[in-house]
Amino acid sequence: MNLDFAKSDGLVTAVIQDQGTGRVLMVGYMNEDAFRRTVETGYATFYSRSRKKLWLKGESSGHRLAVKSIQTDCDRDAVLVQVEALGPGVCHEGYQSCFFRTLKDGAWAESEARTYDPDRVYGGQA
Amino acid sequence: MNLDFAKSDGLVTAVIQDQGTGRVLMVGYMNEDAFRRTVETGYATFYSRSRKKLWLKGESSGHRLAVKSIQTDCDRDAVLVQVEALGPGVCHEGYQSCFFRTLKDGAWAESEARTYDPDRVYGGQA
Repeated sequence: MNLDFAKSDGLVTAVIQDQGTGRVLMVGYMNEDAFRRTVETGYATFYSRSRKKLWLKGESSGHRLAVKSIQTDCDRDAVLVQVEALGPGVCHEGYQSCFFRTLKDGAWAESEARTYDPDRVYGGQA
Repeated sequence: MNLDFAKSDGLVTAVIQDQGTGRVLMVGYMNEDAFRRTVETGYATFYSRSRKKLWLKGESSGHRLAVKSIQTDCDRDAVLVQVEALGPGVCHEGYQSCFFRTLKDGAWAESEARTYDPDRVYGGQA
């Protein structure tokens, strides 16, 4: 499963796509350990660049990403992970997808409604 | 159009998705100038990390990516660009999508056929 982790400081870019709807839900980063755990456990695990540690998506919210298939690109420095998203939303701000803002006349506008209340799920913690 | 270019050495991750089929076609990177040109020209322009310069996708192949809409994520360090892909394929190796390999039993297997002959299009140049 040789990916090119060297190009970006030990990380590959991971695009998470909903297998059913085709919607892109989020972009994260995986180091070799996170990628291995994703494959072995069947649940998407990332490397947090800010917290500098592994992060099982849904650890606190329960909104896990069940892996259905994984593709890599020509350079092998990115992976596309097709998932079934468990729970009402992937974004910690309460939206189905992290891509909830659309560029409109030069400004970013919220282009959809929240699907859950993040304060209830995360209890004030992001 | 403030994106967070500071987090990754002046770059944001750009996921390119076919607006019609929902297929993720490629992942690239944009610096502020590349993003501005993408918005202003309506064609996806990237920053090549290896060549350290701007790169209009389709410059040599003609396989441009006509921008239909752009979303950003909660952190504003990634963009999702919905496009109409001009030409038979986005990948310089001759495939419709750069994500033409799927993980199967621990190895990457080519999971689709080429849609064009890259030697004819690029004349030996990648």
